[in-house]
Amino acid sequence: MSTGFFKNIDKANFEGAQSTNPMAFHHYNPDEVVLGKRMEDHLRFAAAYWHSFAWPGGDPFGGQTFDRPWFGDTMDLAKLKADVAFEMFEILGVPYFCFHDADVRPEGKDFAENTRNLEEISDYFAQKMEQTGTKLLWGTANMFSHRRYMSGVATNPDPDVFAFGAATVKTCMDATMKLGGENYVLWGGREGYETLLNTDMGRELDNMGRFLNMVVEYKHKIGFKGQILVEPKPQEPSKHQYDFDAATCFGFLQKYGLENEVKLNLEQGHAILAGHSFEHEIATAVALGVFGSIDMNRNDYQSGWDTDQFPNNVPEVALAYYHILQGGGFTSGGTNFDAKLRRQSLDPQDLIAAHIGGMDVCARGLKAAAAMIEDGGLKDALSERYAGWDTPEAKAMLSSGLDDIAATVAAKNVNPSPKSGRQEILENYVNRFV
Amino acid sequence: MSTGFFKNIDKANFEGAQSTNPMAFHHYNPDEVVLGKRMEDHLRFAAAYWHSFAWPGGDPFGGQTFDRPWFGDTMDLAKLKADVAFEMFEILGVPYFCFHDADVRPEGKDFAENTRNLEEISDYFAQKMEQTGTKLLWGTANMFSHRRYMSGVATNPDPDVFAFGAATVKTCMDATMKLGGENYVLWGGREGYETLLNTDMGRELDNMGRFLNMVVEYKHKIGFKGQILVEPKPQEPSKHQYDFDAATCFGFLQKYGLENEVKLNLEQGHAILAGHSFEHEIATAVALGVFGSIDMNRNDYQSGWDTDQFPNNVPEVALAYYHILQGGGFTSGGTNFDAKLRRQSLDPQDLIAAHIGGMDVCARGLKAAAAMIEDGGLKDALSERYAGWDTPEAKAMLSSGLDDIAATVAAKNVNPSPKSGRQEILENYVNRFV
Amino acid sequence: MSTGFFKNIDKANFEGAQSTNPMAFHHYNPDEVVLGKRMEDHLRFAAAYWHSFAWPGGDPFGGQTFDRPWFGDTMDLAKLKADVAFEMFEILGVPYFCFHDADVRPEGKDFAENTRNLEEISDYFAQKMEQTGTKLLWGTANMFSHRRYMSGVATNPDPDVFAFGAATVKTCMDATMKLGGENYVLWGGREGYETLLNTDMGRELDNMGRFLNMVVEYKHKIGFKGQILVEPKPQEPSKHQYDFDAATCFGFLQKYGLENEVKLNLEQGHAILAGHSFEHEIATAVALGVFGSIDMNRNDYQSGWDTDQFPNNVPEVALAYYHILQGGGFTSGGTNFDAKLRRQSLDPQDLIAAHIGGMDVCARGLKAAAAMIEDGGLKDALSERYAGWDTPEAKAMLSSGLDDIAATVAAKNVNPSPKSGRQEILENYVNRFV
Amino acid sequence: MSTGFFKNIDKANFEGAQSTNPMAFHHYNPDEVVLGKRMEDHLRFAAAYWHSFAWPGGDPFGGQTFDRPWFGDTMDLAKLKADVAFEMFEILGVPYFCFHDADVRPEGKDFAENTRNLEEISDYFAQKMEQTGTKLLWGTANMFSHRRYMSGVATNPDPDVFAFGAATVKTCMDATMKLGGENYVLWGGREGYETLLNTDMGRELDNMGRFLNMVVEYKHKIGFKGQILVEPKPQEPSKHQYDFDAATCFGFLQKYGLENEVKLNLEQGHAILAGHSFEHEIATAVALGVFGSIDMNRNDYQSGWDTDQFPNNVPEVALAYYHILQGGGFTSGGTNFDAKLRRQSLDPQDLIAAHIGGMDVCARGLKAAAAMIEDGGLKDALSERYAGWDTPEAKAMLSSGLDDIAATVAAKNVNPSPKSGRQEILENYVNRFV
Repeated sequence: MSTGFFKNIDKANFEGAQSTNPMAFHHYNPDEVVLGKRMEDHLRFAAAYWHSFAWPGGDPFGGQTFDRPWFGDTMDLAKLKADVAFEMFEILGVPYFCFHDADVRPEGKDFAENTRNLEEISDYFAQKMEQTGTKLLWGTANMFSHRRYMSGVATNPDPDVFAFGAATVKTCMDATMKLGGENYVLWGGREGYETLLNTDMGRELDNMGRFLNMVVEYKHKIGFKGQILVEPKPQEPSKHQYDFDAATCFGFLQKYGLENEVKLNLEQGHAILAGHSFEHEIATAVALGVFGSIDMNRNDYQSGWDTDQFPNNVPEVALAYYHILQGGGFTSGGTNFDAKLRRQSLDPQDLIAAHIGGMDVCARGLKAAAAMIEDGGLKDALSERYAGWDTPEAKAMLSSGLDDIAATVAAKNVNPSPKSGRQEILENYVNRFV
Repeated sequence: MSTGFFKNIDKANFEGAQSTNPMAFHHYNPDEVVLGKRMEDHLRFAAAYWHSFAWPGGDPFGGQTFDRPWFGDTMDLAKLKADVAFEMFEILGVPYFCFHDADVRPEGKDFAENTRNLEEISDYFAQKMEQTGTKLLWGTANMFSHRRYMSGVATNPDPDVFAFGAATVKTCMDATMKLGGENYVLWGGREGYETLLNTDMGRELDNMGRFLNMVVEYKHKIGFKGQILVEPKPQEPSKHQYDFDAATCFGFLQKYGLENEVKLNLEQGHAILAGHSFEHEIATAVALGVFGSIDMNRNDYQSGWDTDQFPNNVPEVALAYYHILQGGGFTSGGTNFDAKLRRQSLDPQDLIAAHIGGMDVCARGLKAAAAMIEDGGLKDALSERYAGWDTPEAKAMLSSGLDDIAATVAAKNVNPSPKSGRQEILENYVNRFV
Repeated sequence: MSTGFFKNIDKANFEGAQSTNPMAFHHYNPDEVVLGKRMEDHLRFAAAYWHSFAWPGGDPFGGQTFDRPWFGDTMDLAKLKADVAFEMFEILGVPYFCFHDADVRPEGKDFAENTRNLEEISDYFAQKMEQTGTKLLWGTANMFSHRRYMSGVATNPDPDVFAFGAATVKTCMDATMKLGGENYVLWGGREGYETLLNTDMGRELDNMGRFLNMVVEYKHKIGFKGQILVEPKPQEPSKHQYDFDAATCFGFLQKYGLENEVKLNLEQGHAILAGHSFEHEIATAVALGVFGSIDMNRNDYQSGWDTDQFPNNVPEVALAYYHILQGGGFTSGGTNFDAKLRRQSLDPQDLIAAHIGGMDVCARGLKAAAAMIEDGGLKDALSERYAGWDTPEAKAMLSSGLDDIAATVAAKNVNPSPKSGRQEILENYVNRFV
Repeated sequence: MSTGFFKNIDKANFEGAQSTNPMAFHHYNPDEVVLGKRMEDHLRFAAAYWHSFAWPGGDPFGGQTFDRPWFGDTMDLAKLKADVAFEMFEILGVPYFCFHDADVRPEGKDFAENTRNLEEISDYFAQKMEQTGTKLLWGTANMFSHRRYMSGVATNPDPDVFAFGAATVKTCMDATMKLGGENYVLWGGREGYETLLNTDMGRELDNMGRFLNMVVEYKHKIGFKGQILVEPKPQEPSKHQYDFDAATCFGFLQKYGLENEVKLNLEQGHAILAGHSFEHEIATAVALGVFGSIDMNRNDYQSGWDTDQFPNNVPEVALAYYHILQGGGFTSGGTNFDAKLRRQSLDPQDLIAAHIGGMDVCARGLKAAAAMIEDGGLKDALSERYAGWDTPEAKAMLSSGLDDIAATVAAKNVNPSPKSGRQEILENYVNRFV
């Protein structure tokens, strides 16, 4: 029985590029085969519970704009919210969803009540997942909204907050495992500082390293087969977050012996805030062997905060998927829409249309990326550009030392001429596909 | 015999805070003892050859503004330049200087001529250092200005460029050792990319890791006792540089086994461009055990490029030195003025006054930092804030696991209340000293 | 009878620079005479009601952290809030305060109830102002928090929202006049757009111009003697705000015939977000004849949103006051602390200490600015630099035309040589005073 | 007779979207009719002399990379450069070009020699324009590269520099008129400041206003029928430029009585540096009645300086042309490629391919914009959204006052409910066309 929230909105179907129906897919066709795999299996779309169902439409200068029948803090409302959420998952045909504990259950008065609430709602989820076939891409704990977490969790100066957070992660990992989640994510929005004046960075990093090791140990203890992911973000809400970007996380993982246990969940908006392009973060994670999953959205290039908009620029999305496909594509990861409506987009139709538009943009991006891979133009250009390094002489040089090289340079009067990097020609090449 | 370039400008003396003489020190008094050490020995000032003597005053929209008698590309002019440079070092009383090969010698037609030119000028330097007592803080190779390096050196697609660069580093390390340099620096301004479309990031990182290992191997081979330093910068000239910031460099050093061999040379302007404060970069490097030296300057907060201005904000500089002192102060490192005149500051007097002002700002910063350390207020605040972590219970918790912690939280109904972070009170505290 | 909120916190007194008491003024001494005027009369400090009493400590990723006994939406709580606010004003000794309607009264169900509530609380304020001597620097209407304003007020596509806002401004102007307010401010945080796709910019600007003319007309109709001020901000909450910065506002005022009726209320944080320094915005407004008042705070240079921190950098604040004094100082305007505690600063003591620290920073800035003016060094440098423009020849040239000038240049072979801009020497000069 | 520089590169032809030829147009078909006009007549492409022929490939950290046979400072080389330039114009089939004096003539020792050189080369241009049919979109004076201009021209503290610049503008206007230029552009890259400490902003603005009035007066005196354009840019090379953005320029033009005489030449990269989108600047200029022409390029979103890259993002370019078409399209203005190769793109083929790619991107953008206009979806959405303002009641309200409106709001209990802004649906709509 429908909640009626999405009244007059039917399941979104693929109608093709010529359709003018704003509530249909124009490009995303789940069963269409791309590079030998169904689009659905490539993209592994997930809807995010928080933005669509828990966020009231506030911003730093204004409060709630959305008028949702499930807003409130009771278990009944939490179930109504779940009913609507799963209706949306079915309308969109997304195979996955993602959630934080605080998105889905009423806030309890203490840890025990939180745990009971999470168990109750996750049992309810299990039924709905069984009924609808929707799966869990990942679960996570919201350890940034409650005031107890205001100074961080793993990096909190108060060990009791660390304890509360650790206990909460345990319950969220348990729930994620129960629901068959394919990953477990940690985003440390409060793991950082507001001012160095009150911060012992070395101690905080060590505690954060220990916390993440506990997560990995617990995963193995309970036999959770999912991937542990951390999510880089440079700042906001904290002035500085320790998981600044992909390269910084990699350094952290190495320092605490975790580079083979933990991978990264990368977000377009977080990349932009860190001064990178999204494809940079993906390419970096792939190069360092820690690519895991993506939070798909876009950040306004003129705004200095996390705008979490739905993606709408196909050329940018195509480059992201190109690097994902070059890295072998998703294994446990997927494309989670960590994207929210603008707070003026009040209608249920907006919520559905926004996701449809985002999924279509991803589908176009994936197809363009696949076409570039099939064409091989970029790969060939790379092979040609670096061909010199495949010679025995070059390999021998890498095994030698500065003095031997200097002797050779002097003896042979090595005096290299630069060669064109051909950037514009490669950019034009990409434009053939997007 | 003087070159006459600085005619009518005498050696700068300390005249005290009340002096209105713009060509005297008001705060920097080399022999004044701060925290048990002479100010000169704390600050270890160095002047940078490139900005003051090699840069013509150009910017992306205009050419040379400075009218210097030594501009040109002959050995005679190089020696005149050296004469003027050492005159400036003496006027300022800086104990150290720093240079790139390309700053000090004419550009040769090939590696052999570059090498001969560097040997000749470094012999000339050796005499002048002997005469004046000025020492070498660090040497480095300019591997970013010549067109052969346009696509990088260690990360160049052409192995011949790697070879040319490696050979050049060897000669610069030799010169640095000959001149008693206390460090050797590598800044990879072209080690990065303009576009990922033509870049094999994994291969380039591996080559860069190998290059740096060769540097360390050569250091040990020749018995150079100085510290190898790399200098983080996020971008410019490259769209993205691999040595983005301190945390990224630390990850890189770990990956290639270099975290105990190489430390960081941190620059205020580079920190700003990477989205960090200078004290953040210093505190990060200290926490990770890789703090080495600093390039002191300031970056305009409203400009998105490397402005390399002389420092002039005492409160900011004080926080930088506070973290340096907290980390134990400089060992081989020092305070190098990687700062240049504005291109409209044409006069010899501008060059001297700019350094005097910068040195005074550093002296005030150092004294304020020392006073805060002596007062102990910030340290006490930290101790109090993290006191909970010094308890046996907290330490035991760190050795346990998520499930044990969860059991404890549930059993004891741990429900922590947040405590004030007292940021404004600490900021006010700092303002008592700056 | 005290509310007890600030228990154990006494009125802040001036104790001098050597005091270590964090709850005393070290530099702000209201009766000290600077440039012939009491410091209090120069600085004209105001406390802002919203940050200190209405803001719960939330950020985009977390909710309320502050635990204040007056939080809630009844008239009794509004009066308790007022009691505490006036206690703070007295502790600090600020001569002024500022408020939005929504800060001070419960939100009503409609315009009529809002109006009644505002009248009741403003009568209560009138009593407290009478008792304490605290005055109103300016009043304003909050037309950005309520969901009805989500798409703007003057620029709303719905005329009914324009009407509601216009009616609300009338009531707030009435209240401001009743309370003897010296200015009335309009900040158009929602007057802008989220996306140009749904925006008719020309129409919106015209409506905004008409709205502001109505405000001016009403001011004259009721005989309000205060100054009308608009407050520039580039963005946040809107993606783009029409009142982007001082220069943009000046263009807008001219277009709608308001440049002699309306002046600007400038904020440090807004300047930074617009890509300017604070002194730039002040100098611009002074040059264009529209300088009015300031919202004093600081913005984190590494954060891309409005951080509204208390000022703590004396050199920066000194330059702001230098330009204010050069423009003749405040007339109706003043120094309003549009600054909020960090959300982790939970204690009543934090609130008082933050203001004390900010007031001290302003006092130091003012004194440094005054000393520079008394010394005259910067003014003399300007006079010398532009002296050429005071000659009869230069004045005649300005009255001639391109062809005449070209003839003269050719005839006299005018071939100017550049002169040093002496930036570093002037920066060093400033450092003598801060 | 060909110079041979573009050997083996033929005139670029339209081959259609399916072509894989990197040296052919895939989308730009000059004669194709779009909205009733030939594409060539809509887009009015111009090539920029400076980036393609005068720039050596330098950046702030490195010098010349391009190896061009015409580099040097003689009249013969200037003519060779012109020969190659016109060859490029013909290969590309661009109807227009643009130039600065300093791009095209050798730098003379004084004004008289500069004038003679400009006359000689412009006569040579006249012949080539006659032969090839290429026209001049606009001319301008380079008043930023030479050291005499380092402190500005119209705003220089030295009246002799003002004079030299005014005389130079006269000669450039004369040359532009002689060559039938359709516009004359002024970009004030040095009209601004490095530091307010040495700047009298009010005086400088007045002088700049007078300078621009002289330009307009001279235009009318000589009967030049072209449009005078100023080009906004926020900073670089100056720390702050007075022509910050479109809205700032509009305020300046009004202040000096020029808003009906001068329009704007807008650049994508300058928009980005000012914190705006390109379409924002265009929509603003259209709304204010000062839209003139565009400098088409793109700026790297992660770089804080002017990257002047060739455009390659069709969705962005489509929105730019949408607003241009909504404003009535170009009259005297056009699409000038103020775009340069990356400095690693060394080959003649790169230069041609980069322009072809840019022209194709513009053609796709234009066609998408035209299709949206023909479809009418965005216009209809706007009409519907603002329909309330077309009622007599709304119009009457705009003619009334705050008190009347307040009475009505109270009497009718006006209590508006917000309506969805439908941003995502409109974004999806746009994606149907790009």
